[in-house]
Parts: sequence; structure tokens; C-alpha cells
Amino acid sequence: MIPFLGSGKIKKMAKKLRIGLAQINPTVGDFEGNLRKHLFYLEEAARRKVDLLCFPELSLTGYPPEDLLLKPSFIKDNLWTLKEFVRYTKGKDITVILGFVDFKEGIYNAACVIHEGEEKGVYHKIFLSNYGGFDEERYFKEGDSWQLFLIKGVKVGLSIGEDLYYPIGPVTAQVLNGAELIVNIDASPYYIGKIEFREKVFSVRAQEGKVPIVYINMVGGQDELVFDGNSLIFDEKGEIIIRGKAFEEELIVIDLVIKEISTGRLLDPWLRKNKIREALNFGKQDLIVVDENKASYPKPSIESLRYTPLPLLEEIYRALLTGTRDYVKKNGFEKVLIGLSGGIDSSLVATVAVDALGKENVIGVMMPSRYTSQRSIEDASQLARNLGIELKVIPIEPIYEAYLETLAPHFKGTEFGTAEENIQARIRGNILMALSNKFGWLVLTTGNKSEMACGYATLYGDMAGGFAVIKDVPKTMVYELVKWRNKVAGYDLIPRSVIEKAPSAELKPDQKDTDTLPPYDILDPILKLYVEENASFEEIVSLGFDEETVKRVIRMVDRNEYKRRQAPPGIRITQRAFGRDWRLPITNRYRNDL
Amino acid sequence: MIPFLGSGKIKKMAKKLRIGLAQINPTVGDFEGNLRKHLFYLEEAARRKVDLLCFPELSLTGYPPEDLLLKPSFIKDNLWTLKEFVRYTKGKDITVILGFVDFKEGIYNAACVIHEGEEKGVYHKIFLSNYGGFDEERYFKEGDSWQLFLIKGVKVGLSIGEDLYYPIGPVTAQVLNGAELIVNIDASPYYIGKIEFREKVFSVRAQEGKVPIVYINMVGGQDELVFDGNSLIFDEKGEIIIRGKAFEEELIVIDLVIKEISTGRLLDPWLRKNKIREALNFGKQDLIVVDENKASYPKPSIESLRYTPLPLLEEIYRALLTGTRDYVKKNGFEKVLIGLSGGIDSSLVATVAVDALGKENVIGVMMPSRYTSQRSIEDASQLARNLGIELKVIPIEPIYEAYLETLAPHFKGTEFGTAEENIQARIRGNILMALSNKFGWLVLTTGNKSEMACGYATLYGDMAGGFAVIKDVPKTMVYELVKWRNKVAGYDLIPRSVIEKAPSAELKPDQKDTDTLPPYDILDPILKLYVEENASFEEIVSLGFDEETVKRVIRMVDRNEYKRRQAPPGIRITQRAFGRDWRLPITNRYRNDL
Repeated sequence: MIPFLGSGKIKKMAKKLRIGLAQINPTVGDFEGNLRKHLFYLEEAARRKVDLLCFPELSLTGYPPEDLLLKPSFIKDNLWTLKEFVRYTKGKDITVILGFVDFKEGIYNAACVIHEGEEKGVYHKIFLSNYGGFDEERYFKEGDSWQLFLIKGVKVGLSIGEDLYYPIGPVTAQVLNGAELIVNIDASPYYIGKIEFREKVFSVRAQEGKVPIVYINMVGGQDELVFDGNSLIFDEKGEIIIRGKAFEEELIVIDLVIKEISTGRLLDPWLRKNKIREALNFGKQDLIVVDENKASYPKPSIESLRYTPLPLLEEIYRALLTGTRDYVKKNGFEKVLIGLSGGIDSSLVATVAVDALGKENVIGVMMPSRYTSQRSIEDASQLARNLGIELKVIPIEPIYEAYLETLAPHFKGTEFGTAEENIQARIRGNILMALSNKFGWLVLTTGNKSEMACGYATLYGDMAGGFAVIKDVPKTMVYELVKWRNKVAGYDLIPRSVIEKAPSAELKPDQKDTDTLPPYDILDPILKLYVEENASFEEIVSLGFDEETVKRVIRMVDRNEYKRRQAPPGIRITQRAFGRDWRLPITNRYRNDL
Repeated sequence: MIPFLGSGKIKKMAKKLRIGLAQINPTVGDFEGNLRKHLFYLEEAARRKVDLLCFPELSLTGYPPEDLLLKPSFIKDNLWTLKEFVRYTKGKDITVILGFVDFKEGIYNAACVIHEGEEKGVYHKIFLSNYGGFDEERYFKEGDSWQLFLIKGVKVGLSIGEDLYYPIGPVTAQVLNGAELIVNIDASPYYIGKIEFREKVFSVRAQEGKVPIVYINMVGGQDELVFDGNSLIFDEKGEIIIRGKAFEEELIVIDLVIKEISTGRLLDPWLRKNKIREALNFGKQDLIVVDENKASYPKPSIESLRYTPLPLLEEIYRALLTGTRDYVKKNGFEKVLIGLSGGIDSSLVATVAVDALGKENVIGVMMPSRYTSQRSIEDASQLARNLGIELKVIPIEPIYEAYLETLAPHFKGTEFGTAEENIQARIRGNILMALSNKFGWLVLTTGNKSEMACGYATLYGDMAGGFAVIKDVPKTMVYELVKWRNKVAGYDLIPRSVIEKAPSAELKPDQKDTDTLPPYDILDPILKLYVEENASFEEIVSLGFDEETVKRVIRMVDRNEYKRRQAPPGIRITQRAFGRDWRLPITNRYRNDL
């Protein structure tokens, strides 16, 4: 668009900055561990002659700290950790930006600019995240000002997460006041489509401002969230110069050429409009001098890799893997226990667990009853053999008999029904939990999103466990992931029979999921509309779905809120999961008559 | 303070207004039912010649509607319901104020002033509630203006909930601009101390403004919240003129004399300060004329009762009773099922349930094992006899045997421990849920707050059920409530033996709670400090508690977050319950080393 910017003449005027992005995986509340991680990357960055090292949003505390932010001691410990870190920057000739909680008659989601053992300035996040799974307004005061930092002779505008997403905000003000580089530190959790969304929006922001943007994101799992990394640097045309790894901790180092920004901006009508400046309602701020001296070059050269985005199914699978690994490890577990039914859900969960934790840390338990088919037993055994995991076979028949006998006088005259079905599922839950209590293994549950939505699961039965790996994965996607994983394996790692048979809970003779639920290829699109997009009955029907089916699905979703409220947390992979971002009342008569 | 205000001469200048407070119990999302309720009280108020009828905050939708507010169809249905109601006000010569969700490029928590089939004006809540269990910033835009409404010749300033709690806000502006009466519609949930707090603050607000305040609160249970009613009218000296019933739906009607406010205010230096006016940053608003004609008197006289506040234990008990009744009924259940252990927790829950639902709707189940004492069996039977409820006795021994036998090969070489204890609790959970599934009875769980805090409960065992009646009641308070209830009964309704024996889970021989927990009279104060007041380890120790004990308690609270996440909802009675107002991460290494 402004072709002469690339010419040799302009290049001579350019400043250079070696930037390090520490795309780290901190743990919430682990100040000691998080400090160690910061110091490790500080050393590493110093060794690689980095000028400006950036950590993600709230990198010292981990994200999101939730109600830990209400503990005064937590705020104090966080400030103490900051002080400790600052001390270590002395003599390093490196400017560091990191995330912490600032305290000034109230707390702020803040970023600190540190250089040579000194805090040079603090930025307070202005646009707090208070939607979806976020509750930042519950804790933080809004920032009300921005600054420019002179770092190695480059004017840097600093912002946090959300601040960069808004079309008008502190970043606009920084650009209009001469920022030559924008740094945004974020903790942005993964969902399908999020990575593309970020790249698109930030590219536009860079173009609009004719300014390079450095975007650093967190990685790792924290309860239901997975941060995907994918940190980014854009040039002033909005082109991606570098993309960090997906789902992996790393230090990204790159030499960034800061072009004489004003030249490019001279051509841009947008930046001359006073109306925009006025709309901002931000005054001009002082320039905080961190380091006036330009970076000295040449430095020993560095290699910067630009990773390509992962294909969708691999991306989702990696999210599940990361979320599972971090939940297990950060909570101090080593081994996990999975009830294997021979069905596709538990097969996928076991495979993810093995990929995340190693086969020696995954134990399968097959608990056949009178309704379990021979094929299911074979499929579970074959899967365990393929994965190389231990499989315990614990028949539940004698226990089930004991329940039926005990309850016979109370159930007299009634027909076999949900009660008898659920007893079996709850026996299995009890056995898994007994093994868990005995040996300290974490139970992973195997329910998918379609089941969670419709309540097609037994509370305290197959829902019993600490972490629900595929809770946010619709059944149709479970199939896709399994097929993808088999393709990667190069053979039927998950036995073909598991994929081909009709899904069944096997809690009564010849049971099929479709006895209760619509076929999954009809159910899943309806659920997406109702759950993720808040579409109404009328809207869904108007898209061509059968009226009775839609009614039935909505009724199931609405009436099973009580089950979801007691479900274990699981990994979010869609725009709206049944987690922190799903706050429906249980007592709710809205359209109860549907 | 301004004695001549009461004299005959002043009185002649006074205007009168007959005010009706419809302290209703709506159901979230039940537009049809809530509309019916509004119309019922409209008719009733018209019959009693009310001039101004007030409903609580979000009275049309119920409170809190949570994520139902994200459904466009919900907003539309709410607006339609408002229109329907407005139609019915024609010909009634009555002004109505009610709560609804307004939609103007975003949604507002709003109050509508209605007269003779017309919407006269709408107020938007300015101070949104976004703390504790509230997430209003997640949904609503803030209001940015206020009005005065001329109702029967009286200038009325209208506000919603939180707006009246703040020392400076729309109410201040209304007063400074000549409001003669303040109306605040609220949905304020109960906790211990809340009723007194409201009365104190509003009394001060009335005094400050030299203005009478009409405060209307909701009643009834909604998931974990109980709204306590206790609507209030204050005179301009801050004296309570009338107090509505606690925990009961009613129409309060009173004739309010509106004194010539300006006379009183002439004496008040506070109201002359321009500094306050400027601090407000609110412009003067137009007066919206609803009805210029003064109310005609005399009207047929009415009786207005001023209820006295309930004694504390009765207040708490009534909160539990209301919360239980409404959760059960609003969710379409008739009967409840309670596992009776012969212990004090389940005895209290059963008693609350009988008081809330009637003895014919409560079924007790005693499930003895080898570790159940004869005394426990006798105590449970005696309680059931006293309450007049059905008691099923279902021994779990054969089932327990079957589990032990099934698991023997897997448990070989291990000692009896938590695993074996929990199996018993989970058998009981399974039996209760089987009866629930078979007969459609709701299972009430019996765990108290001290247990919930320390994780001294079995997931899927005694924690299995739909609603946790005393989840927020500390164990020491359980004892007080039981003693109070026995006193009311005039005999040992809950057998004395239940109160006198040492608490035990009876899951192994000679088990006592104190084997695992500190004595409750030490535990409960520590929990209150740590859970409700966010006190740190150091702060609690500095208050004189034993260091080791405090460490142990904090460790238990922190490490059992995963259990609480899967607990059923229960009634909030303290300033901070383990519900919507407790958002701690599970993955959390904060002070993990304690």
C-alpha cells in the first residue's frame, strides 16, 4: 500500500528492537513458581540480547485468579513478588513488561514496565472483561489513563487484553500521539474460531494505526479454560511477521525494525481527523523515558520461526490435551482413571489422556453388567491394548443384584425404568471413586456436550469424577476427532467397531441413544443455535428444523440445568461452554409450557 | 428535631397519598404467572382505593433472571407482558410502579410508571449490583438520568435497589430538586444482619433528605437466594412508619401524609451546600406529570400493621423454610426425600421440610450399616414419629458386602480407609437417588456449612441430592436452631439424644467428627473469618487462634474446592455462602505450602 516504505533509503532511518515474547504457562496463585518462571525467561532473554521482554496479562498471579483477588494477602503477596522480580532486572539492560495486580485504593489489572531494577511505569487496563466467563468488573477498577514509554528510543504504547479489541480506546490514543510500537499483553482463552478472530482484528488495528503490534498471549490450562498461546507480531501493514507456537510455552525472539512511522502516517487521512481525537476524550499524556539509547546493532543473529496455524481438528485436540494435562498436573495428580464402556466418548477421553500424560499414567476400568454387549467388552480391551494402558475389568452384576434385592420391597409393582438404569451408572461411579480414594487417582469423566445439554447422563453415575475432558465437545465432533486421531496414528488406534456401532448407554436391553435423543447430526446443530447463540424456538424452527424436535430439545436443555450445576468442570472449546459462561437459573419457568 | 412539623397548622398544608406495596413472590421467567400476580394485586389495590401501587425490582421477570437476559425472546416476552399489564390499568385511577427489563440499544434494569393505560415514564437503574452473587454489569447498561414524577400532586423520585444504598446518587439529586417522596423498588436477598443494615441505611437516607422513603422488597426463594420482604416506609425523620411481613407475600396499604417538605428542609444546612449539588454531576430533569390532582380524602379507612422484626433464630429458620418451600414448589416437586442418620443435621433438615411442605410430603430414609449405632436408629425413628413422617429403613449391609467383595482383588494389601468409608455414603446416595428417580421425589441433602467448608462430606454420597437446605448454616448454628425449634414445639420434637451425642459420620467404628475436625466451637469462628471475611492465616492467628489449627482449617477449605463445585445449591443465610458468591479456582496453588 505504501510501497516506498520498503526502500533502502527509508530503511536507513529505521530503529531496531530485539523483542522477546515469553509465552508462559503460569499457575494461579503460585507466586513462587511463577516468579521462578519469570526469572528463567529473564535470564534466557538476557542471554539472547533481548531489548524488550514481554510476559502475558496477570503473568505473576496466573489468570483468572477469581475470588483470590478478594484476599488482601493475595494482593500483598503479588506486590512482593513484583518487587522481587524487579530486583533481578538490575544490570540486565533489558526492559520487561509483565502483568500484575496493582493496588491504589482499589485494585487494577495492571502491566508494569521495568528496567534496571526500577519500576518505570504502570498501565491500568481500561476495558475490563466482564462477559462470557469473565468477571473483571467484580474485582478491578477501570484504568483512566494511558502513557507512551520510550524504550531504546522507540515510543511504545502499552495496553492489556480487551483494550486492543475495541475500535476506539487507549491504543487509538497512543497511536494518535505518536506511538511507534503497540504492545498488548493478554490472557485470551481458546475456543474454536478465536485464533482467527484475534488475527483478523489485530491486523486491522495495525493497519488503522500504521503501527506494528506486539501481542503476547498466555498458554496452558486453568480449570475450564485453555490459553492457546499463538502470540503474534504484526508489521504496520497488518501482516503477521511471527506467530508463536500453539499450546506450548516458549520464548519467541525477533528483531523488529521500527520504520519511521510518521512517513507512513502522512499518507493516511484517518489519522488526521480531529473528530476521532475528540471522541477519545483522553488528554495527551507525558512520555515516560525508560531508555533513550537506541538498541545497538548488529547483535548475534537469531532465528525466528513463523509457525503456521494448526488444522482445526488438531487445534481442538491439542486444546483438550493441554487442558487435561494442566488440570491433572497443576492439581498435584499423577495418574487418572477412566471408565471405559467400549463407546466412542470414553475411547476418545482415554486417548487424549494417554497423549497428555503417558500410557503409564492412565488406568482404564471396564465395568460390565448384564446389558453390556460382548462387542463393548472386546472394543474396550482392544482400545486398552492399542493404547498400552492397564485395563481393570470389574463386573457390577453382584452389586447390582444386591441393590435390586434391597430395593425390591420399595419398588414393588413398578416397572423397570430410569431408576434401575441409573443404579447401574451410579455403581460404576462408586467403584471409580473408591479406586480414586484408595489410590489417589483422578477420575476423568467421559460425557460429551450433546449429553450435557440434554441431561442424557446420570448424576453421580457417569458424571462422577474430577474433570470432564470432552464436556464441551458435541457428539458429532467426537467422531471427527476420533477419525482424525486414527489418521494420525496411521491405523485404527480407536477400534473401527467403536466408530461404526450405534451409540448406546447399555443400561437396558437393546438401548440406543436415539431412543431418547434425535439423531446427533440433527441434535447438534439445534444445540449450537440454542446454547451457543441464544436462538429462540421460533428462530430455530424458521431455519427449517422440525418443530416437535426443536421443542423436545429445548425442553431437555432447560429441565436439566440441575444436573449441569453439579457436573465437574471441563475444557471449553466452543464460544459458550457449560461452565463459568453459562449462568442459567435452575428455578426457571421461562417457556415452561413449550 | 423539627417539632412544629407535627402541629395542626402545618398539617393543613399536607398532601395525602394512599400507598400500596405489593410485596410479591414472582417466579423467574414465569411471565404468565407473574402477570396474573400483578393483576391480582392491581385489582386488590384498586378495591382498597390505593393511589400509588409499587411492585419490587424486576417484578415482571423475577429476580435474578441471570443468563435468561441474554435471550432476545426473553426480553421481548417481558416487554409484551408489560404492555398487557399497562392495558389493564385503564379506568383504575391508580399509578403503578413495577420492575421490568427495558430495551433501548441495550438492556436496562428498569422501573415503569404507569397510569390509566399509559406508560408515563421509565427509570433506569444507575448503580448496578456487581458483587457478591450479583452480575448485573454482565447484562445491563447503566442508567444515566433520573426524573421526578408528579403523582397525585406529589413529586416522587424513583430509584431501584442499589441506587438508594449509595450516599450520593440519583436519590440525592431527586431530593435536591424537590422530591417530596422517594420510592425505591428492590430485590434484596436475605442474609443475617441484612434487615438491620437496610433499616439503618435507609433511615439515614430519609433523615439526610428530610424526605419520606417508600421501600418495596421482594419475597420468596429463587435457587440459593431468599428474599425476605420486610418492605419499609420511613417518615422524613427516618422513623419507620410501617414494616412489611418477613418472608410472606402481602399487600401493604397505608395512608401517607406528605408534609410540606420545603419547610423542613429550610432548616437543613446540608441541603444548601452547592458543593454537594456539583459533586452529583447530574443536570436538572423535567418533571413528568402523571396525575396533577391531589388524592381525594377522606377514603374508607384502612388498617396498617407495623410488624416487629423476628428474633434472629426465627428469622433464620423462616429463611430456610421459605427457600426450601419455593425451591421444591417452583421446580414442580411435591414430595421430598431425606436420608435420616439420627444426627442433628438431617434432623433439622427434616423438621424444616415438614414445616415448609407438610408432613405428608416428607419421606425419611434410614440406611443403617454395620457402623450405625442402635441409638442412631432409635433417634431417627423417634424423630420420624415426632414429625409424623413416613420412615423407610433400608439396610445397606448386603450392598456394602457386594462392593467389598467385588473390590477385594483390587484393594488387596490395603488398609480400611476413606475409600471404604465413602463407599457406604455413596451407596446411600445411590439408594436415595433410585427412590427419587422411581417416584419423582426431590432429595434434600443435609450437609452444613462447616462440613462444606472443610470437605467433610462425601461427593456423590451424602452430597447427592437436588437442594442443600442447611448448606450455609454453620454446625454451631444448627444446634441453636434445633434448640429454638424444640422450644417453640414445647417438647423435644428433635430428640434430646440427637442434641447430646457427639457428632459422628458413623462410617467406621467409634468415629467422631473431632477425629478429623477441630471442635466446632473453634472451627466455626475460624471459618467465618476465612470464608466470610477473607482474613489471612496471619490475621486469624493474631486473633488468638492456635496456629496449627488455623493452618489445618485453611488447608481443608482450599483443597476441597472441587467438592463444593459439584455440590447442590442451597439457601444462603450468611454474608458469603458457597454459591454464586464464592468463585474460587479449583486449580490454585496460592499458599499451597501452608
